[in-house]
Amino acid sequence: MSLSKEQVIEVFKKGFPDSKAIIESIEPMQAVMRLPVDVKHLRPGATVSGPAMMTMTDAVMWVAIIGEKGEQGFNSVTSSLSINFLKRPKHSDLIAKAEILKLGRRLVVGEVRLFSEGEDEPVAFSTVTYAIPSD
Amino acid sequence: MSLSKEQVIEVFKKGFPDSKAIIESIEPMQAVMRLPVDVKHLRPGATVSGPAMMTMTDAVMWVAIIGEKGEQGFNSVTSSLSINFLKRPKHSDLIAKAEILKLGRRLVVGEVRLFSEGEDEPVAFSTVTYAIPSD
Amino acid sequence: MSLSKEQVIEVFKKGFPDSKAIIESIEPMQAVMRLPVDVKHLRPGATVSGPAMMTMTDAVMWVAIIGEKGEQGFNSVTSSLSINFLKRPKHSDLIAKAEILKLGRRLVVGEVRLFSEGEDEPVAFSTVTYAIPSD
Amino acid sequence: MSLSKEQVIEVFKKGFPDSKAIIESIEPMQAVMRLPVDVKHLRPGATVSGPAMMTMTDAVMWVAIIGEKGEQGFNSVTSSLSINFLKRPKHSDLIAKAEILKLGRRLVVGEVRLFSEGEDEPVAFSTVTYAIPSD
Repeated sequence: MSLSKEQVIEVFKKGFPDSKAIIESIEPMQAVMRLPVDVKHLRPGATVSGPAMMTMTDAVMWVAIIGEKGEQGFNSVTSSLSINFLKRPKHSDLIAKAEILKLGRRLVVGEVRLFSEGEDEPVAFSTVTYAIPSD
Repeated sequence: MSLSKEQVIEVFKKGFPDSKAIIESIEPMQAVMRLPVDVKHLRPGATVSGPAMMTMTDAVMWVAIIGEKGEQGFNSVTSSLSINFLKRPKHSDLIAKAEILKLGRRLVVGEVRLFSEGEDEPVAFSTVTYAIPSD
Repeated sequence: MSLSKEQVIEVFKKGFPDSKAIIESIEPMQAVMRLPVDVKHLRPGATVSGPAMMTMTDAVMWVAIIGEKGEQGFNSVTSSLSINFLKRPKHSDLIAKAEILKLGRRLVVGEVRLFSEGEDEPVAFSTVTYAIPSD
Repeated sequence: MSLSKEQVIEVFKKGFPDSKAIIESIEPMQAVMRLPVDVKHLRPGATVSGPAMMTMTDAVMWVAIIGEKGEQGFNSVTSSLSINFLKRPKHSDLIAKAEILKLGRRLVVGEVRLFSEGEDEPVAFSTVTYAIPSD
């Protein structure tokens, strides 16, 4: 069971009503989101902050899971997240690309790459695991 | 060169003027912070959100670095953060304990354990590395 | 159900008949092992090799699990291992200390610190998760 | 400066004279290696052992670095390695694919995916960072 982009957007709005992130595309085992640049995320020595990038990483993997599992994935919880920051992001929108590498019944493992819009080299690279509650 | 708790608090306020986290203690190679519970951090299926815990993890390690390096650590940037969420936090304050394991001139590596106040078992466990810019 | 050091040693010999590592102590939620230095583990630019340290990290957490779960833990498999190498080990025995942070029915999460014998600062620091098969 | 596959093979033999792993291909920022199945690597409950997979992960990233940096990369040392085991490997050769995501002067970050030969889904997924000694 896979959801369309429109269906995922609806679920995302329910789950993250305050998020400013935008769902760009939903493909099998993949999701792409965009975080419009916002001065509020700035911290010392950074452009887009590390926490904003981690939040985005966490969200885009949740969205990829919803795309595959639908509402059944709604209560999924992050069980681990490991991120490497590779270079300073630019003052442009942040693009987050999630790919699911293992779609288990109870466990999902995937990678997320973050880009400054228009750049080829990622600014950060992450591995995320989610636990899917049974019921 | 090590700073006192009061000095670290002053630097923290400059670096994170909007943070609600409170510095509880500064010891050699260690720092403890508290995040007062705040309804705003809640997300689907969670109590304190994963992103709030990651933000806290990132911040407490930065604070531990300031405690050791003073203002020289101000522009430190996270180079990696790896977190395991161990159990659901309670609706109580979040306590973050950082320990520096390697204090290099250019690189700092440490671990962070997060607790729900009053609990013995951590709710999350993390490894964080920071790069210290030369100048 | 917890095993004595002698019982754990017996299980370890069955599981890892060729290992040169020695079990030093078994405490609640903890295990300590020693890897006698061996020229064979050397690789370019290193003393004790990275792979030897990772193998040791994996083994000492397995041993800590056996200490808690007995034979029931025998078929546990590593689900993730994340290691940071902090400084070059010396030409002395490698000491590995495992601490279980979450002892679930199906999942165990712990940290491992590796030391060159006689040193206070760890040479490596690791997070390990093991899946316990049901049966 | 990039090396040919033949040149990398020569450097690899010097660095890892006892390794049974075979270099399959060297492309810009990428390397592929094969580990022929060997009964010796078996451990309780596994096919190819976790440590054998970690050793392979470490080696293929070193090889990818040699491909880009030549002999200058010879004394590179792993600074972190984070691996997720996704599913049980088969009793077939292990294929390791490394991709460099950040090729810095002093630091290299990359991902490694491990496959059982002939399979599409990876058996393990890893992030590796190497420090390149100066001069």
